[in-house]
Amino acid sequence: MNDGPDNVALKAGEFDSEVIHFPDTQPLVLDSGGEIAPLTIAYKTYGSLNAARSNAILVCHALTGDQHVANTHPVTGKEGWWSLMVGPDKPIDTDRYFVICANVIGGCMGSTGPASIDPATGKPYGLDLPLITVRDMVRAQAMLLDALEIETLFCVTGGSMGGMQVLEWVATYPDRVFSAIPIATAARHSAQNIAFHEVGRQAVMADPEWRNGRYQTEGTNPRKGLAVARMAAHITYLSESALHRKFGRSLQDRDALTFGFDADFQIESYLRYQGMSFVDRFDANSYLYLTRAMDYFDLVADHDGVLANAFMGSKTRFCVVSFTSDWLFPTEGNRDIVHALNAAGAHVSFVEIDTDKGHDSFLLDVPELMATMSGFLSACGRARGLAEAAP
Amino acid sequence: MNDGPDNVALKAGEFDSEVIHFPDTQPLVLDSGGEIAPLTIAYKTYGSLNAARSNAILVCHALTGDQHVANTHPVTGKEGWWSLMVGPDKPIDTDRYFVICANVIGGCMGSTGPASIDPATGKPYGLDLPLITVRDMVRAQAMLLDALEIETLFCVTGGSMGGMQVLEWVATYPDRVFSAIPIATAARHSAQNIAFHEVGRQAVMADPEWRNGRYQTEGTNPRKGLAVARMAAHITYLSESALHRKFGRSLQDRDALTFGFDADFQIESYLRYQGMSFVDRFDANSYLYLTRAMDYFDLVADHDGVLANAFMGSKTRFCVVSFTSDWLFPTEGNRDIVHALNAAGAHVSFVEIDTDKGHDSFLLDVPELMATMSGFLSACGRARGLAEAAP
Repeated sequence: MNDGPDNVALKAGEFDSEVIHFPDTQPLVLDSGGEIAPLTIAYKTYGSLNAARSNAILVCHALTGDQHVANTHPVTGKEGWWSLMVGPDKPIDTDRYFVICANVIGGCMGSTGPASIDPATGKPYGLDLPLITVRDMVRAQAMLLDALEIETLFCVTGGSMGGMQVLEWVATYPDRVFSAIPIATAARHSAQNIAFHEVGRQAVMADPEWRNGRYQTEGTNPRKGLAVARMAAHITYLSESALHRKFGRSLQDRDALTFGFDADFQIESYLRYQGMSFVDRFDANSYLYLTRAMDYFDLVADHDGVLANAFMGSKTRFCVVSFTSDWLFPTEGNRDIVHALNAAGAHVSFVEIDTDKGHDSFLLDVPELMATMSGFLSACGRARGLAEAAP
Repeated sequence: MNDGPDNVALKAGEFDSEVIHFPDTQPLVLDSGGEIAPLTIAYKTYGSLNAARSNAILVCHALTGDQHVANTHPVTGKEGWWSLMVGPDKPIDTDRYFVICANVIGGCMGSTGPASIDPATGKPYGLDLPLITVRDMVRAQAMLLDALEIETLFCVTGGSMGGMQVLEWVATYPDRVFSAIPIATAARHSAQNIAFHEVGRQAVMADPEWRNGRYQTEGTNPRKGLAVARMAAHITYLSESALHRKFGRSLQDRDALTFGFDADFQIESYLRYQGMSFVDRFDANSYLYLTRAMDYFDLVADHDGVLANAFMGSKTRFCVVSFTSDWLFPTEGNRDIVHALNAAGAHVSFVEIDTDKGHDSFLLDVPELMATMSGFLSACGRARGLAEAAP
């Protein structure tokens, strides 16, 4: 194809992913009015696309996730973030489905983001990258699917910010989504969640090494600020009862309080580790861009104040999932989505899963989640006429 | 008195308080094994002590509160933090009761804290001040009451960290407390609350202007770090529903999103203001010391794992108060105190107040709280034989 994307799949060593480059003539047009060109998308796939090209599942990752869903992560060496969910004989069965996950635009694992080179300057964009919205992320994914010649997704799923993308997919490309599983998400970001994100951003920006976003060029790195942001956010991903069960007031490698500011308590040691390890794999400016995208997400306002308008006439089959102990994206906000889907006459199931593991439940071994995903996908697979997996 | 405290009340211009200096011969002995000498306590009083010295109410302030309960604050120019509660004809009626509030040890409004001069060096203590516990705060208050020749308190009350002091008062000086009103507190700090405090401390310590606590000497000030700590903490003082009601997704002085990192949303602008104004009145090292004191608070562990042991034989009349929307010190933790008091055979009332205002409810105009305080104090006043207030 002339002027088409450079869709010779490349191994980008650093990111261990397939990479697609769209030329300047195929810019990503943004909600802000700006555009990104050239555009790069890094992605991973698992399983095989069937001949009818009808078995593709798009997995949308969360704020600090990436495309490494079910393989060893190239930076951390840990298992992919949804290894429990995606793989042979897993609920998202890669013997049956073709799974795609792309690093979101604004991210830092190979897709165009603030650390990418700005063609106008030859230096990293920093804050010169236009602001990204969840819809922009979804538009970029649609460009990827076009390049992969996948017209319709069998399913699109993800939790948290991933769930926002799921909702946006259905709202923006209603005819391209056969089924959708938004998990632990909301149709608009709450004031409390904006507040927590703002704390994280201020923590990054308060770090003098942030240098107004130009730290790559200046050879600095706002590690401390980003670690504080991560620590604060991490608390919100868990639940009070899970923290009590896992840590309580247990001391860290000591028999008594030290009367000092060392990490006397296991929970302190754990949080510090979460902060420090995060900065090894994540870009501070990406953290600003992606939290902002979530803050801006408001599917209600985008549809004249009536969420049902986002789904009117939708033929997509929905399964909405929430967790009882998730106080960041509580069941109530997920139920609002269900009510809107009902009002729009859509085909919807709703499962509230009883667990004390908090918002992060969607990443963890929660048997009822596995069973829900597996059962819903199987039923949709039959409706879609997909072959059953080999016994 | 020779070697007695210098109890000539001084106006400390900066702190607009009464100040009492205890000489080196009257050190404050600390839980850590260390001691503080000389010791200074800054305090305020309201109303008049009766002839029987039987109408004194000790108000214990919270983490970022101080002794300016019911007067114009000398630094902020705002009304005292409990002006709604304390004053003539208020629930804590200063026509009837003699109200005392002392700045806690470790604080920064005139009592000895990390910003005080270390006699060993002639410079501010910084982190050389020994760590303070809630019991140390209470011991210091007892020294103050001794100096004021008040043997028994008619009541001791306070919310949050103030409530911890109330519980510690009863546990440490059971015969000196006629009645006690712990509000929105817990007998031990939870893992989640330790986690939030640790984030705040790491935010302060990540600020290069903190200089390992020596910022006064070095002429710097970790304002940005402390502001981030305050922002994170402030979210926890409110409730999701209150944030939604007060701010929702309303924009700040603009009609549309700006696609940038300015404070588009009112909640962002509000939080930034909370952070910035806090650093004008609070010392960063005090924030470290007082959060640590709360983390260490564990009345259960202090009494061999049985909270009721802390109250065994207590003749104090208790009124425990919690708020339905308080997720920092939830009703459950307050109910644990009630259960222990019941097990100890103590005289206890328990009121859970239905409000969406979150943990900060104890500071706000919550009519049921006012009625509870007023009614309980009146009943205790009759039992104590206090004269009724003039009609």
